[in-house]
Amino acid sequence: MTAQTDQRSANSPARPDGRTLISIDAMGGDEGPAAVVAGCSLSAKINPDIAFVLHGDTAELDPLVAKWADLKGRCETRHATEVVSMEDKPSQVVRTGKNTSMWSAIESVRAGEAAVAVSCGNTGALMAMSMIRLRKLPGVIRPAIAVLYPSANPQGFNVLLDVGADIRADGEDLMRFALMGVSYARNGMDIAHPRVGLLNVGTEEHKGRAELHEAYEMIRAREDEAGYVFVGFVEGGDISGDSVDVIVTDGFTGNVAIKTGEGTASLIGQRLREAFKYSPLSRLASLLAYTSLQRLRQKIDPRRVTGGVFIGLNGTVVK
Amino acid sequence: MTAQTDQRSANSPARPDGRTLISIDAMGGDEGPAAVVAGCSLSAKINPDIAFVLHGDTAELDPLVAKWADLKGRCETRHATEVVSMEDKPSQVVRTGKNTSMWSAIESVRAGEAAVAVSCGNTGALMAMSMIRLRKLPGVIRPAIAVLYPSANPQGFNVLLDVGADIRADGEDLMRFALMGVSYARNGMDIAHPRVGLLNVGTEEHKGRAELHEAYEMIRAREDEAGYVFVGFVEGGDISGDSVDVIVTDGFTGNVAIKTGEGTASLIGQRLREAFKYSPLSRLASLLAYTSLQRLRQKIDPRRVTGGVFIGLNGTVVK
Repeated sequence: MTAQTDQRSANSPARPDGRTLISIDAMGGDEGPAAVVAGCSLSAKINPDIAFVLHGDTAELDPLVAKWADLKGRCETRHATEVVSMEDKPSQVVRTGKNTSMWSAIESVRAGEAAVAVSCGNTGALMAMSMIRLRKLPGVIRPAIAVLYPSANPQGFNVLLDVGADIRADGEDLMRFALMGVSYARNGMDIAHPRVGLLNVGTEEHKGRAELHEAYEMIRAREDEAGYVFVGFVEGGDISGDSVDVIVTDGFTGNVAIKTGEGTASLIGQRLREAFKYSPLSRLASLLAYTSLQRLRQKIDPRRVTGGVFIGLNGTVVK
Repeated sequence: MTAQTDQRSANSPARPDGRTLISIDAMGGDEGPAAVVAGCSLSAKINPDIAFVLHGDTAELDPLVAKWADLKGRCETRHATEVVSMEDKPSQVVRTGKNTSMWSAIESVRAGEAAVAVSCGNTGALMAMSMIRLRKLPGVIRPAIAVLYPSANPQGFNVLLDVGADIRADGEDLMRFALMGVSYARNGMDIAHPRVGLLNVGTEEHKGRAELHEAYEMIRAREDEAGYVFVGFVEGGDISGDSVDVIVTDGFTGNVAIKTGEGTASLIGQRLREAFKYSPLSRLASLLAYTSLQRLRQKIDPRRVTGGVFIGLNGTVVK
């Protein structure tokens, strides 16, 4: 069994054991392969219907896999000699990265054996490789990157898409983003009838962007058929609010929005630390507040904002 | 002397006393006329080169003005029978608002007697009235709304513009926004050579938006002549960062960005309060941390994000 087959399958892979195969770039990410393998073991324990194929240095991976009982018989490893670093340029990696664990992980999806590829590595490289190797799903005009943005909703996050590209989206693209986002919210957050909002500047006075009004009509038209609730136009503040579950926008606006939110969150974190260092009393307060602040960090972790799912490709890729 | 003259002046007004006249809508805002007059008195004390004309109910305003020694001989009042409420619709106010204090305040700028109009009232109404009554400056294709966004810079804020409209901006609009933003940073924040960044999705791969690349060249070309430093493309995270002083973008993106940032800041505030209410120990910590948190609130006050300066009009209007 090799990853580099040329056979393409647009359908979900069927495996003899009935399990869904997840292809993992085990070398990507800051925490190293041991953390990745530990994560796989945890997932395997929780979900009996999944199996893994891990890509990377097998000499390093095999002993790690052997340590976890939950992975026994459900995790194979596949050798890749190279690793995409966080500094590698996407444009270069797509040309020279054939021997990397990331490439190999994507190839498992391309070959139809795995349902999804997961990497914690270089986002730009992952997107570029995914686009080039997997291509788009039939019917998808433009793939999108969706993020889970911290929100006031019970599920703690909203789906925001697209956040990945600078190309403008027309009405139909936005409508398709809505459908993809609904599917993500339904499968990923267990919301049967997600509430969908279309990002705009909000007031009735602003009617300049024709594609938003086109998208408005198109998204409303498919509301019943696709089983979501369309709440209409929403504003930037609703991305972290509780009035919608899915926020649809073009990749440029979405990208600026998450980075602005992330930057604002870091600035607040920085100012908060400064505020607590200000006087002996505030230092004492910060000691007592330590667990409260840790709890807060868990709820609003900017790193969760940076992760994205590539959807609309001929195969699923998760960052 | 009446405010409702039809004479227009595009130049700064010259007054016999040499002072710059500031026209104030004294009835706008949540805090009422007493707070507005107190604010004028404070400004008058700090800056001997300014004088005020206050618009509103003179029966209420005159006794308030008389209370402050700093306003003696430097503050006249002008009667306006009506007030624009926060609930009034902009489209209606521009038709029926002729007798409001806001209209009267703008008329002083239109007539050329005041250099700037200030109102804490209804933003939409203020923008609509300003556009209709003041019109655009010669050379300005599109007026912009600029905000001071909390940042990691020493001055504590960055200038972000445009944040007000949904109409797309072309390369030349963006270049003019850059010049307006530089002027604002120089005059408002005392930065002799502001650093200017053009908002983009950041990576070299993204080259889709032609107007951004047009604007890039145009902004770079005027760097020396206009006395700013162009740092090139910046990302959403730089809006609250310390790498630039002025961030230029179209009104749609800017509006989404500030509202996303504001929403994220409120969510964090809300979560922070929850975190501190979690246990008796965290409640004690919150008591001790009270002054630290107040200090934080002063530095990152979302209300400062919502205020904007209307620039590029035939007269300056401040919200």
